[in-house]
Amino acid sequence: MSLLTEEHELIRKSARDFAEKYVDPIARRMDRENYYPRETIKEAGKLGILTPTVPAEYGGGGGDLRAAVVVLEELGRVSGGFSLLVEAYGILFADAVNNFASKRQKDEVLPKVAAGDKIGAFALSEPCCGSDAAAIQTKAERRGGEWVINGHKMWITNGYYADYYLLAARTGPREARHKAITVFLLPRSRCVEATPIEVMGVRGTGTAELKFNDCVVGDDDVVGEVNGGWKIIMHTLDVGRVAISGVAVGVARGAFEEALGWARSRELFGKRLIEMQNAQFELAEMLASIETAKTLAYYAAYLYDTKSPDFLLMSHVAKLQAARLAVDVTRRAVQMEGGFGYSKDSKAEMFYRDSKILEIGEGTNEVMKYVIYKLLEKKFG
Amino acid sequence: MSLLTEEHELIRKSARDFAEKYVDPIARRMDRENYYPRETIKEAGKLGILTPTVPAEYGGGGGDLRAAVVVLEELGRVSGGFSLLVEAYGILFADAVNNFASKRQKDEVLPKVAAGDKIGAFALSEPCCGSDAAAIQTKAERRGGEWVINGHKMWITNGYYADYYLLAARTGPREARHKAITVFLLPRSRCVEATPIEVMGVRGTGTAELKFNDCVVGDDDVVGEVNGGWKIIMHTLDVGRVAISGVAVGVARGAFEEALGWARSRELFGKRLIEMQNAQFELAEMLASIETAKTLAYYAAYLYDTKSPDFLLMSHVAKLQAARLAVDVTRRAVQMEGGFGYSKDSKAEMFYRDSKILEIGEGTNEVMKYVIYKLLEKKFG
Amino acid sequence: MSLLTEEHELIRKSARDFAEKYVDPIARRMDRENYYPRETIKEAGKLGILTPTVPAEYGGGGGDLRAAVVVLEELGRVSGGFSLLVEAYGILFADAVNNFASKRQKDEVLPKVAAGDKIGAFALSEPCCGSDAAAIQTKAERRGGEWVINGHKMWITNGYYADYYLLAARTGPREARHKAITVFLLPRSRCVEATPIEVMGVRGTGTAELKFNDCVVGDDDVVGEVNGGWKIIMHTLDVGRVAISGVAVGVARGAFEEALGWARSRELFGKRLIEMQNAQFELAEMLASIETAKTLAYYAAYLYDTKSPDFLLMSHVAKLQAARLAVDVTRRAVQMEGGFGYSKDSKAEMFYRDSKILEIGEGTNEVMKYVIYKLLEKKFG
Amino acid sequence: MSLLTEEHELIRKSARDFAEKYVDPIARRMDRENYYPRETIKEAGKLGILTPTVPAEYGGGGGDLRAAVVVLEELGRVSGGFSLLVEAYGILFADAVNNFASKRQKDEVLPKVAAGDKIGAFALSEPCCGSDAAAIQTKAERRGGEWVINGHKMWITNGYYADYYLLAARTGPREARHKAITVFLLPRSRCVEATPIEVMGVRGTGTAELKFNDCVVGDDDVVGEVNGGWKIIMHTLDVGRVAISGVAVGVARGAFEEALGWARSRELFGKRLIEMQNAQFELAEMLASIETAKTLAYYAAYLYDTKSPDFLLMSHVAKLQAARLAVDVTRRAVQMEGGFGYSKDSKAEMFYRDSKILEIGEGTNEVMKYVIYKLLEKKFG
Repeated sequence: MSLLTEEHELIRKSARDFAEKYVDPIARRMDRENYYPRETIKEAGKLGILTPTVPAEYGGGGGDLRAAVVVLEELGRVSGGFSLLVEAYGILFADAVNNFASKRQKDEVLPKVAAGDKIGAFALSEPCCGSDAAAIQTKAERRGGEWVINGHKMWITNGYYADYYLLAARTGPREARHKAITVFLLPRSRCVEATPIEVMGVRGTGTAELKFNDCVVGDDDVVGEVNGGWKIIMHTLDVGRVAISGVAVGVARGAFEEALGWARSRELFGKRLIEMQNAQFELAEMLASIETAKTLAYYAAYLYDTKSPDFLLMSHVAKLQAARLAVDVTRRAVQMEGGFGYSKDSKAEMFYRDSKILEIGEGTNEVMKYVIYKLLEKKFG
Repeated sequence: MSLLTEEHELIRKSARDFAEKYVDPIARRMDRENYYPRETIKEAGKLGILTPTVPAEYGGGGGDLRAAVVVLEELGRVSGGFSLLVEAYGILFADAVNNFASKRQKDEVLPKVAAGDKIGAFALSEPCCGSDAAAIQTKAERRGGEWVINGHKMWITNGYYADYYLLAARTGPREARHKAITVFLLPRSRCVEATPIEVMGVRGTGTAELKFNDCVVGDDDVVGEVNGGWKIIMHTLDVGRVAISGVAVGVARGAFEEALGWARSRELFGKRLIEMQNAQFELAEMLASIETAKTLAYYAAYLYDTKSPDFLLMSHVAKLQAARLAVDVTRRAVQMEGGFGYSKDSKAEMFYRDSKILEIGEGTNEVMKYVIYKLLEKKFG
Repeated sequence: MSLLTEEHELIRKSARDFAEKYVDPIARRMDRENYYPRETIKEAGKLGILTPTVPAEYGGGGGDLRAAVVVLEELGRVSGGFSLLVEAYGILFADAVNNFASKRQKDEVLPKVAAGDKIGAFALSEPCCGSDAAAIQTKAERRGGEWVINGHKMWITNGYYADYYLLAARTGPREARHKAITVFLLPRSRCVEATPIEVMGVRGTGTAELKFNDCVVGDDDVVGEVNGGWKIIMHTLDVGRVAISGVAVGVARGAFEEALGWARSRELFGKRLIEMQNAQFELAEMLASIETAKTLAYYAAYLYDTKSPDFLLMSHVAKLQAARLAVDVTRRAVQMEGGFGYSKDSKAEMFYRDSKILEIGEGTNEVMKYVIYKLLEKKFG
Repeated sequence: MSLLTEEHELIRKSARDFAEKYVDPIARRMDRENYYPRETIKEAGKLGILTPTVPAEYGGGGGDLRAAVVVLEELGRVSGGFSLLVEAYGILFADAVNNFASKRQKDEVLPKVAAGDKIGAFALSEPCCGSDAAAIQTKAERRGGEWVINGHKMWITNGYYADYYLLAARTGPREARHKAITVFLLPRSRCVEATPIEVMGVRGTGTAELKFNDCVVGDDDVVGEVNGGWKIIMHTLDVGRVAISGVAVGVARGAFEEALGWARSRELFGKRLIEMQNAQFELAEMLASIETAKTLAYYAAYLYDTKSPDFLLMSHVAKLQAARLAVDVTRRAVQMEGGFGYSKDSKAEMFYRDSKILEIGEGTNEVMKYVIYKLLEKKFG
């Protein structure tokens, strides 16, 4: 046995089959054309793969966080973009709705989203303040018994295509920072102006800049409590950090496996590349990195699943290390493949670009270190 | 004074003006559309920037290797692609022709190439053997007093648009390796089948896969001596290694300067990013890396210009370190810029992709280490 | 809950108390004078700390491998030398005896060794072949119904003071490599010539060069089967690899904790060092490294304790990464403490020297990579 | 030709001969016993090696800064300790005296110091403020037409044995920071209480903690002007930074050369270690690092010798990089030599400990980055 159970391995098998059958064939198109795979999302919805932690009664995978990590790993192995899309979709949006929304909200939203019929997006980041979420400026103001939302969101994965936004808005003065933030469940309407953002990798995720112009919602659309949004945001990012570590493991594995195949078939100076000690040591480094990232990701998820107090520190450590290891492994893979690895005929080329977002999105390496330091202060009080 | 003279600084100024006026505006288009900047090449030809080391009487820049490094650095600062294009054009092709071709060949080719009216490409790499040049398989066979060339070349910068190829072909058995290679100056004709190669960065360089099908040339088209090609190839790669170090310095500087500007204007947690010690230390690391790469590149060029026996070792050291430092600096720049750095609105994003080729092209890091080891064996005999 | 149980935490507490009360006061003396802490060993014997995995009926700790890792971690936190001494004593010698020796052998040796009354050492390495254990040259030859042992061992921890050697010797031709190796349990006698080895760190461990001159043992002293030693050696090194990861975690923690205290009290440029972002990020890096090494070490031990087939790969990954992380963390600690960290008034200085052995002993980083590559070949058959 | 002239190469030859004949035989004793090589210092004095930049008329080497770098490199190649001793002696003390003292002061001190008959030490650092020199607390107070000095200095190389101190003391309020510091030339007397400091490496340098108790000096003993000490300190540290880069190159070379010899003679798995690709690549990395550090050190010295405005930035870059490269090269050397490299039979073991001070002394890596950032602010105004 290990940190994963047999059930997790069954989920892995199903996710891998799906990834190879449905995602792999569109991975390059997503990347090349910034193509948003609407049909593949629906297909994933049929299998609960879109929302790995949403209960089965809503059509989700019904798994724990380790299940989600395993799914994202297998998706990431063929496409960093598709994996990240599902991470934002199934964890940042759907898992958060499942954890914090009212029964009515869940009943309305989760079945459609789990099935892939309606798209959900988590709208937190703003141009002002990527790393400083407590400083957001989008406002929700009370007018005639309703909430009127105005603001500007940035880097919203699935944002261009979303039908629902789980949106964080300020419901008090900016000075109150995190104490005056509320989360709303906002259905898409004409008040939302979306502009796609072109990025280096993880393309085809529908990442967008969003402007909310006088969007009106009711009290029913508040998720949790008014001014109680911070707790929801923090918890969602906690979970997301582990989920994204799964993406990192997958991307690293995808690049490693291609590089291994290349080293086995490529001839150089009269022998196969893989017969060279340097290539063997490089592959060993990659595998050691992957096993390290995997262990950290699974263990962080396990700590969450078992409600351990060690979870918070480990989730930051896992995100920091897994992201860095993914960047390192994909770099080594490109290098091993040489000109081929630099060309768009390889997948290592794509994974190399995909991996870099993992050190930036959902908390940069610097934010991870900042929080680890804060936790360290407490731990070694 | 320094490793560079005042004349080099004048050349730098003129290259920088050209880069900012003509190259910067098309840099993103080259990258996005894989656009080959035919008009900008002509413009560069007017100023001797295309062929920095070709004598002025042929229309070249008439400079030494340091002049070339400075030009490539300034071009690389706005576009890794344009800089690499000029490196392959002006050094691998034109400098080699100038060093090794007959007066007749030079008279025919150099004026048109220096002016940017005709494009030249250096065709050495093959699918079989990127790092193992002595194993090339393209054949030039003797038929009726002429040479008939058949073969397959790969990763040929400017190759898709070239009017002339400086082409390495086997003129003896494969077992003879480097002793049976001849260099030809081949005008483009229908016998050449070119397919563009899509790559991660340094896009818009016309990089192509080439098939030569029964291309016929005469004895007049041999450059140097039959079976004497290896010396030409080695010398050209020696010079190219230093030239490409200049590209590396430029790319690193471009990314660094953008990151510096970003850090100065970006606000985060209530202060400017640049007020944070971590950002200051990161910028210091980037500058230290740039100064290191610069010193190595200029010094290697200086050793070439002064015919020092230390040149060979230093050219490999400079290429290895400058390429690695460029990858490292561009990575730090993207990281500092966060989401912006990952988006195609930044230039750091492009420089990050551009830089990776520098660890692969014209001798991978691994080839550099292999040769450094060989030189070490001699030095510490 | 976590990878460790409450029982492991109890063992940790007892090991920590022992470490602080008995080991910390002698740590610097061990280091300075290469002093072998005979009395402290006896003290540890009273508590089962010397042989954490030997059954309680023999006087051992009666724990699993995780228990051993936790003990070594807590010892390493105050003295890398003492921790390594116990690792070689309790794991390489005593755990191996417990796993492979006959009941008679165990009954004779384990009680005395567990109590710290008699010292045991594992004698494998030879001058010829540190990393290549299958090439050992020490011979055991059959003479008159007995075995006569002659040979030369190197880097034998506790070797200078040992009363018993678990010794690997060749019982067949050298060409047979690992198929002709037998393990013997050899009581110390005059036939053993021991010379202490002076090393950089982990001092006071009684590390010695040993010459065996016509040492005579009987068939009773064979451990396991004749020519069946390789299995014993491999299994022992497997366990040792995880145990040494525990040493690595401890050494890193010791250095980190001192550096944290230093940063909190040291003033610089008018503020406390710890208020500087760079110091905070450095401490966060150190803690992230420690948590990573810990997770890998505990998980590898857990896989052993649960007899998982994933153990073999993970034990190599854990050893490789934990050793590197320990070197890195101690280096950062020395750097943070500046002149103090470089002086012998600090413990960071000692931990820095201690840590380096972890990348060399019981399989170098290079051997780890070699084996990981071999396992990779099988895994991705 | 290169950055060094033929004259520099002659100086190198003489320094190397001296190093091999006189320093190598005592290097291990210095390290083991913290032995201060009084006789070897005198021997060095005969050849101008102690004070490479002091004019020949005073008995110094009469060279420029490159000459000093070359001398320190050759000394460092056999002993980091002896090289650092000479750096503090010949540069921090003697070069500073030569640059800033009055003719009378020079006439009195330099001949004896250059000859090695009297020892000089530069006394700047204090327990309060290693990295923050402007905060020193040692006071020189005016009493009856004389200066009475009281204070506490730390990490003073040669300080235990010094006959003269070039001492920085506060001659005004602490708030005035660098504007109220004066440098004195203080002959040793009973008022100086010296305690040796035990350090990890560069042992045998007479490094001491010093207490100055009512030391009395006259106006004649002020070096430069009252309250004008900062300029002297800054200039001396500027020069020292380059000099210490020379120490770094030497230490790295010493470790590399031993590792190369080891790899050539060591057999492993049936072949020589040096036949393994990983060993070849490691050696190539070491040599590339050494060539990089050398180029930076020589170039920085060249910029000083030619009074280039680029000197200041490059001196910080050279110190930062050369120190890091020395730590890295010595670490690789120990690793390559395995158990031998960890034992005190190797020199790599000593060089590994020696090298670490180079990242701390005369400005830590962090101070280098801080200043590089400050220079960057100006340069990119």
